[in-house]
Amino acid sequence: MKINANYSNLEKSYLFANINQKIAAFKAAHPERDIIRMGIGDVTLPLCPVVVDAMHKAVDEMAAKETFKGYGPEQGYDFLREAVQNYYKKINVDLELAEIFISDGAKSDLGNILDLFDKDNTVLIPDPVYPVYVDTNTMDGRKIVFMEANAENSFLPLPDASVDADIIYLCSPNNPTGAVYNREQLAQWVAYAKEKNAVILFDCAYESFVATPDLPRSIFEIEGAKDCAIEFCSLSKTAGFTGVRCGYTVVPKALEPLNSMWLRRQTTKFNGVSYIVQKGAAEVFSEEGIRQTRENLAYYMRNAKIIADTMKELGIWFTGGENSPYIWLRCPKGMGSWEFFDYLLNEAGIVGTPGAGFGKNGEGFFRLTAFGNYENAVEAMNRLKKLLAE
Amino acid sequence: MKINANYSNLEKSYLFANINQKIAAFKAAHPERDIIRMGIGDVTLPLCPVVVDAMHKAVDEMAAKETFKGYGPEQGYDFLREAVQNYYKKINVDLELAEIFISDGAKSDLGNILDLFDKDNTVLIPDPVYPVYVDTNTMDGRKIVFMEANAENSFLPLPDASVDADIIYLCSPNNPTGAVYNREQLAQWVAYAKEKNAVILFDCAYESFVATPDLPRSIFEIEGAKDCAIEFCSLSKTAGFTGVRCGYTVVPKALEPLNSMWLRRQTTKFNGVSYIVQKGAAEVFSEEGIRQTRENLAYYMRNAKIIADTMKELGIWFTGGENSPYIWLRCPKGMGSWEFFDYLLNEAGIVGTPGAGFGKNGEGFFRLTAFGNYENAVEAMNRLKKLLAE
Repeated sequence: MKINANYSNLEKSYLFANINQKIAAFKAAHPERDIIRMGIGDVTLPLCPVVVDAMHKAVDEMAAKETFKGYGPEQGYDFLREAVQNYYKKINVDLELAEIFISDGAKSDLGNILDLFDKDNTVLIPDPVYPVYVDTNTMDGRKIVFMEANAENSFLPLPDASVDADIIYLCSPNNPTGAVYNREQLAQWVAYAKEKNAVILFDCAYESFVATPDLPRSIFEIEGAKDCAIEFCSLSKTAGFTGVRCGYTVVPKALEPLNSMWLRRQTTKFNGVSYIVQKGAAEVFSEEGIRQTRENLAYYMRNAKIIADTMKELGIWFTGGENSPYIWLRCPKGMGSWEFFDYLLNEAGIVGTPGAGFGKNGEGFFRLTAFGNYENAVEAMNRLKKLLAE
Repeated sequence: MKINANYSNLEKSYLFANINQKIAAFKAAHPERDIIRMGIGDVTLPLCPVVVDAMHKAVDEMAAKETFKGYGPEQGYDFLREAVQNYYKKINVDLELAEIFISDGAKSDLGNILDLFDKDNTVLIPDPVYPVYVDTNTMDGRKIVFMEANAENSFLPLPDASVDADIIYLCSPNNPTGAVYNREQLAQWVAYAKEKNAVILFDCAYESFVATPDLPRSIFEIEGAKDCAIEFCSLSKTAGFTGVRCGYTVVPKALEPLNSMWLRRQTTKFNGVSYIVQKGAAEVFSEEGIRQTRENLAYYMRNAKIIADTMKELGIWFTGGENSPYIWLRCPKGMGSWEFFDYLLNEAGIVGTPGAGFGKNGEGFFRLTAFGNYENAVEAMNRLKKLLAE
């Protein structure tokens, strides 16, 4: 039996292991110091009451023979697909139910969607980037071309007509940079994809953080995008579902045969999302669910504003902080990513994520997140101001 | 962009669509007749009380900031992996925690595991078979060789040394035939796999139906199996989790690098099973959970016995019915699978599944399942006896 030799080309990620090791060493050396974690990419607020109620009811349904649910449709129950369909209607995007696929999260679908594509495709990926785009394509042995995201383009690279690509990854609002494409920029990407007969894999897991009017939350707000884009979204950050697991993927009918192929892939290699989870997820899109989840998002965005305002006060260049829970900053005093990590941990007891962990263009940058609690965000920024004033 | 051309080699399955069409036509023609469905491969009894309680508690944990859980380990929480580890100990199989991976079901893992193998491998699959084994390999373009399961070998094909294979699918207790390999037979497969340097993908989703002492419930009960087998199991049938979604896969450390590769695959392309589901799943393996789930299994197996006893009484050859919820019978009067389907529906109002839908060797055979209710099983068998006595 021959194994998939491409796995040996994967780079082992030491990012979070290194961070944890450094934190452990710091704690051992300074047991009295308290640490504020601003590297965390995970939510911390509990599920909203409407979601909790719906899941309790669903559990009860599963407890009685008359209401018990066995296998559901692999692509999701219609009650949830309709809720997603209505959510898109609010931003004037009309989708057919058959274009909406419920999944256990964007990470699964972003990886699994590659089943539909030949190995002989060139993949265009921004650098820095969420590492999963690179790793999943490396596992398949596809050729990867990086596009340069940097301070000059505000970490929002635009298409280069001289580069040929078949599969294009875009993430907006971006992880890790927090940068958000505007309509005109996305329209350039749509035009490029159509010109190259390429497909855009659009990751909008952070769409619910977009507050500035007219910034697109879905690539399907751009004319022509249904001819060239697949969109991946998730309730992880929108509704605190990182441990509950539910997302959705939109494969337009205009992209046939990809819509049929994805249906076939999911009905063959997946068995649907837990009924209990889907019942909770549907409530996220209800009027009251939107109100409750937006309250949590506002809590995080208050933290983001505190961080962003501090950066402005300190004259530190950054992206994000608006329309995104991430603040991507240039390390002060010309420090490297890991140098600033050590400095911030040792001098201020603050943990963030070195930008270098997201690609070579991340060197010299640093990510802070808004998912912690308010008091810590205030305290951390006070410490930072004091430190940099020294 | 080039699509994966292998998808065009998939055969469209019309099995259940055809069945539903025939039922609809029958209902339209005979609105007064009542139909008993014995084709269903899905459970019908509700979740056990211990599972329901655990899931309610988990939902409450997710509702409070102090107990809220975000991202969990992709390979599953230790509390559930330990429960699985202890479950295996009862059949004298010692596993390391790192060998146990929690998933959203056996179907996902049986498909996704193929990521680890080169396309250039020969796959050995029994006929008849659960269609997913064939389809997932067709999607990857692997060469498939079928082994003949038939009445002569009681639908338990044994290795043929003249056939070379790299990846071998075994399912015991089998879907659709209900046949169960004994230790000596599985030992032959383990010896063959080691001889050929092949890997066995062992699907034991129905292990909890095994009641006959000394019949293996795990391939790891066979000496040497850890050197050549990966095992897939599920709570779908064991605990009525078809709509809840939880399973587990065992990749032995002895199979390195496959264990590390699977960990890398899952941490890259999967984000773990819902915390709520995992809390429910862990209770399935508790003492009280085992007692409660076995009650449900006993209910189904009473149905199976009624069906099996009727077959014996009628002199119809069959496999399964013991140690399996499936009864796989030779169609009476030399009928073909679909011929018998029509006959049974039209003359007795009973719906089953034509064996031909599971592969060419299924022609002339028919599957009945024990997942319905007791009264219907009794009534259906009375109708069948009357029909065949005519």
